[in-house]
Amino acid sequence: MKAIGVYQGTDIKSQEFTTADVAQPVPTNLDVLVKINAVSVNPVDTKVRQTTKQRSLKVLGYDAVGTVEALGEQVTDFTVGDRVFYAGSNQRAGSNQEYQLVDSRIIAKAPTKLVDEDAAAMPLTTLTAAELLFEKFNNPFEKDANEGKTVLIINGAGGVGSSAIQLAKWSGFRVIATASRTETVEWVEKMGADQVINHHHDLIKQLPDDLNQIDDIMILNRTESYFATAAKLVAPLGHVGSIVESSQPLPLGLLKDKAASFDWEFMFTKPKYGVKEASQGQLLTKIAALLDSGDIISTRTKTLSNINANNLKKGHQIVESGKMLGKLVIDGPFTD
Amino acid sequence: MKAIGVYQGTDIKSQEFTTADVAQPVPTNLDVLVKINAVSVNPVDTKVRQTTKQRSLKVLGYDAVGTVEALGEQVTDFTVGDRVFYAGSNQRAGSNQEYQLVDSRIIAKAPTKLVDEDAAAMPLTTLTAAELLFEKFNNPFEKDANEGKTVLIINGAGGVGSSAIQLAKWSGFRVIATASRTETVEWVEKMGADQVINHHHDLIKQLPDDLNQIDDIMILNRTESYFATAAKLVAPLGHVGSIVESSQPLPLGLLKDKAASFDWEFMFTKPKYGVKEASQGQLLTKIAALLDSGDIISTRTKTLSNINANNLKKGHQIVESGKMLGKLVIDGPFTD
Repeated sequence: MKAIGVYQGTDIKSQEFTTADVAQPVPTNLDVLVKINAVSVNPVDTKVRQTTKQRSLKVLGYDAVGTVEALGEQVTDFTVGDRVFYAGSNQRAGSNQEYQLVDSRIIAKAPTKLVDEDAAAMPLTTLTAAELLFEKFNNPFEKDANEGKTVLIINGAGGVGSSAIQLAKWSGFRVIATASRTETVEWVEKMGADQVINHHHDLIKQLPDDLNQIDDIMILNRTESYFATAAKLVAPLGHVGSIVESSQPLPLGLLKDKAASFDWEFMFTKPKYGVKEASQGQLLTKIAALLDSGDIISTRTKTLSNINANNLKKGHQIVESGKMLGKLVIDGPFTD
Repeated sequence: MKAIGVYQGTDIKSQEFTTADVAQPVPTNLDVLVKINAVSVNPVDTKVRQTTKQRSLKVLGYDAVGTVEALGEQVTDFTVGDRVFYAGSNQRAGSNQEYQLVDSRIIAKAPTKLVDEDAAAMPLTTLTAAELLFEKFNNPFEKDANEGKTVLIINGAGGVGSSAIQLAKWSGFRVIATASRTETVEWVEKMGADQVINHHHDLIKQLPDDLNQIDDIMILNRTESYFATAAKLVAPLGHVGSIVESSQPLPLGLLKDKAASFDWEFMFTKPKYGVKEASQGQLLTKIAALLDSGDIISTRTKTLSNINANNLKKGHQIVESGKMLGKLVIDGPFTD
């Protein structure tokens, strides 16, 4: 079977993806073997590509939609032929190969009303948004259950931001999101933001007049640049969360008087450390239902046809530009 | 009536407490007027004394036990004659006066089986411990409900630590606490710690062999000194919390890979910002029941008899030494 990857990490300009012919793996225990139909490229894919030290072929890719082809002997929740979607694990070979092994606890049946390329856009970003908004910030993952609360989403137009806006709005939050370009402003409004403010200008001055504090704040870009502002804005007992590591120590003391919390979200913590894996399968099942009901929509904005080294390179280049709006998907089949 | 306080803040050696004769206040709205029977001295009292800029008499004191003497017109939960206890608010005149106004939402009926001096020791520290352990760390406040989880309490012998050990043990945690002197080690064992380790030595090396990560970590002293160790020890998705402001920015990124959270606890946030005040009355009601059932015991270790300027100065000197084990209480009546 075909597996596509890279050797060690360098800048995309001088780094080529390579297609290798490798043996098809066999699932054991809780794993399933999935035949990959479509994948997406996330910013984290490009970081892994740049920094991998692996001398053998490093097969990248997290998000995938595919069909279950074989089951490990402990798998009870899925059967051969099930169409599934997932974000996978950063501890194993990725989704940029024809057949992939994945732990059945972190996958779910794919939304039945979405085509592969729409479904493939969603798992990693929506899981990240859901874990931060509902698990870390301790809000109910239920329709309209957060009415009366406000969330600020800094960098609303990226993949995680686009999913976060939709989940927050559906669950009842008043949603303030940031964007800076005409097309990103329009996009975050389409995702459901109640107000859009520009993250290149003073966020506090741009807030609506009736709003002087915010219950939950998601920092989805340059944590060190927005931390102090978030600390000023967050409500007493509120939460500030981030998915982007800070390049420097943070003045955490700014949150003390308000007894506020700071939460890191990292979607791969559960599969990496082997904790609460099944919660990811459960979250994805809820996400699939919301996609099927139309309560949230796919954030796919770009599609490349055929999964091959060329398109992976192209996809990485686009995502690496940092200007992506929503998600980029590469649709199967695998070609040379 | 007598009110005891200080003018501006300085070191206790050159600072005198003054007794003044002031008008007895009248409760309105949700306030009750309480006749004070006993108070305790907390470390935060000494910080407020040192740093106050108030030119008029600053009446200190948070913890109190007393009798309701009069009711604001909106009070429905209490009647005249009720014996109550509370930690009060840092926004109002304190408990070091014969009669004090306090918001009825943040008080509770005092434990009936405890004498005044035992009950007075408990509110501020036990509320702090309960808010951090149950609200911030998101654990159930129920007997045995946290079995299988582990908590590390750094500085277990102080007031908050002593209450935290007891609440954690009662609610099912395996409790590791730190102490460094023979008498503090014995004390934290008496409070219920399963293991005691010395915070002057490497905490990680002293952990029991079967323990390499800890779900929840409470830093109750020098946050900057213990943060990096806590980050190493905390379990994936775990919580590190503190009640002591850091003198420097903290390397928060150490928690990123484990998607862990950092929570500040500050008991006065609720009354100061006017959020969730009633939750403090409810927590204190549960704490009173635990004291009455003997599931937790008073942490009082020292008592001074008669509330007056002399004893307040003495109490502050003892607490300010930083060597206190458990709590210091000053028992009424008020004298010159």
